[in-house]
Amino acid sequence: VSAALIAVDWGTTNFRAYLLDRNGSILERVSDRRGILNVADGDFAAAYLELVGDWQVSADGPPAVMAGMIGSRNGWVEAPYVDCPTDPAALAGNLTPVPMADGRALWVVPGLACRNDGVYDVIRGEETQIAGAIARAGATGVSAVYCMPGTHCKWVRVCDGTIAGFRTAMTGEVFSVLRDHSILGRLMAEETGASLGPAFEKGLDRARDAGGLLHHLFGVRAEVLSGVLADAAVADYLSGILIGHEVRDLGAGEAVTLVGSESLNERYRRALTHYGHAVDILSGEDAVVAGLWAVARQAGIVEEDV
Amino acid sequence: VSAALIAVDWGTTNFRAYLLDRNGSILERVSDRRGILNVADGDFAAAYLELVGDWQVSADGPPAVMAGMIGSRNGWVEAPYVDCPTDPAALAGNLTPVPMADGRALWVVPGLACRNDGVYDVIRGEETQIAGAIARAGATGVSAVYCMPGTHCKWVRVCDGTIAGFRTAMTGEVFSVLRDHSILGRLMAEETGASLGPAFEKGLDRARDAGGLLHHLFGVRAEVLSGVLADAAVADYLSGILIGHEVRDLGAGEAVTLVGSESLNERYRRALTHYGHAVDILSGEDAVVAGLWAVARQAGIVEEDV
Repeated sequence: VSAALIAVDWGTTNFRAYLLDRNGSILERVSDRRGILNVADGDFAAAYLELVGDWQVSADGPPAVMAGMIGSRNGWVEAPYVDCPTDPAALAGNLTPVPMADGRALWVVPGLACRNDGVYDVIRGEETQIAGAIARAGATGVSAVYCMPGTHCKWVRVCDGTIAGFRTAMTGEVFSVLRDHSILGRLMAEETGASLGPAFEKGLDRARDAGGLLHHLFGVRAEVLSGVLADAAVADYLSGILIGHEVRDLGAGEAVTLVGSESLNERYRRALTHYGHAVDILSGEDAVVAGLWAVARQAGIVEEDV
Repeated sequence: VSAALIAVDWGTTNFRAYLLDRNGSILERVSDRRGILNVADGDFAAAYLELVGDWQVSADGPPAVMAGMIGSRNGWVEAPYVDCPTDPAALAGNLTPVPMADGRALWVVPGLACRNDGVYDVIRGEETQIAGAIARAGATGVSAVYCMPGTHCKWVRVCDGTIAGFRTAMTGEVFSVLRDHSILGRLMAEETGASLGPAFEKGLDRARDAGGLLHHLFGVRAEVLSGVLADAAVADYLSGILIGHEVRDLGAGEAVTLVGSESLNERYRRALTHYGHAVDILSGEDAVVAGLWAVARQAGIVEEDV
């Protein structure tokens, strides 16, 4: 089986690459902790060649397409944002080449920008997952709300195959800083169970009460002080409050497709279901591989074996 | 002039005491960094005697009344919470004595507890400021919404002299952890001007947009990335977003009385005015001194010179 494309998802803290055959199926994969913040001296070319050089030994090797923070100002080359509304063809038409001395073919997918009420929002990496989700849903007529949970969770609206716009919520990062640095974190049990307990749904219910998020956060402390909430349940309750507010504020529409890791997809599935949304689930890894393949095809970098 | 009462405001990070005459006026004052977290070995008696022992050299000295975290589980003696609705007379009727070997008279004011939609909320220290605000407003008929800004901002509803209930918002602490530990803090200028700039009002306007607080927080980052927001304006913009959400969620009623430090009172005055509220202002220090005096009188510990 001959290799057709090197698909690279190069983010802040992780590097993942996939060698794809002429059907877009995965032949081999590489995973490494060398996200863009962990590349020695910012020498991305050296890291790239070390990690996937075996797949692309010369300019005759398969081309590579990369998505994620590798295209940011702090990455290898800066790939400018494409403005919404747009579509996967515009991503394919705006690839930024990475200059390589020996002529190896290597491109970076652009991020997306939009404005909500006049305020900027940006995406880098998830645009490729959206292209993958659209490709998987069929060539035409796809309309959906995608929720892509993570440190900065993205809510993307796709209408008839067009990426209409999106909003980002800082939910994951806010949870982390409150857990690690606030008075709420100091109330949490040292050991928290791996599975999500019923306090998560209690937090989802709380997010519906009057008073707003900043008030509900203090209630976590008061409930522990008064003996109502056990320290082992604090993390789940806090997570439920935050994700609850996010879903209530951004979960427009009845049906939502989740695109993320297994554990975050499950957490958001429970939240969305709790509020009456219908939920579809797509693995974040499947989406990014499908998206890199779709963009490479639309850019004419690879031809699918039909 | 003879001393009548030692009024002590003993919080988490600060100790403040006032020697009052028989009209409740301040004769002398002491301020120290020995809040309850900074008292060596938790020896509160030693700290107390060192700081104000000159005012109360024996059991014949003026009595002392203390408010604040000194009455918490981690303080000197635990003063149980009084449930709302309640009034200043109930505070006076529920003072907790501090046992002193030589019979010195020393009491702690209780905190307040209430429930909002079934969830606990607690106050410790601000109840005494409310008692002071009510005493200053006159003996009868006072109805007001009090906003007491701080790390954990309190919104208290007083109806006809009764403390009907309250809600706490974690606004100040959320601002601190986002500034010190999130990606937003890393976007801020090293040096931020002491005065509040127009980005604060921009943040207040943003809080009115769709999408919710967790979305508006990410917008801070996107606005900086896109060059719209200068790094020197990030802190004010973030503060405006957070206080804006708080005021919109909790600022019920037309008129609000602010009880806090000069700088926080000014920040919240601008926010409340921006949203069309009428604002009265009371210094937090004046309120706590008036409250300790009012509680001591209602408890019969001191008699006012009439």
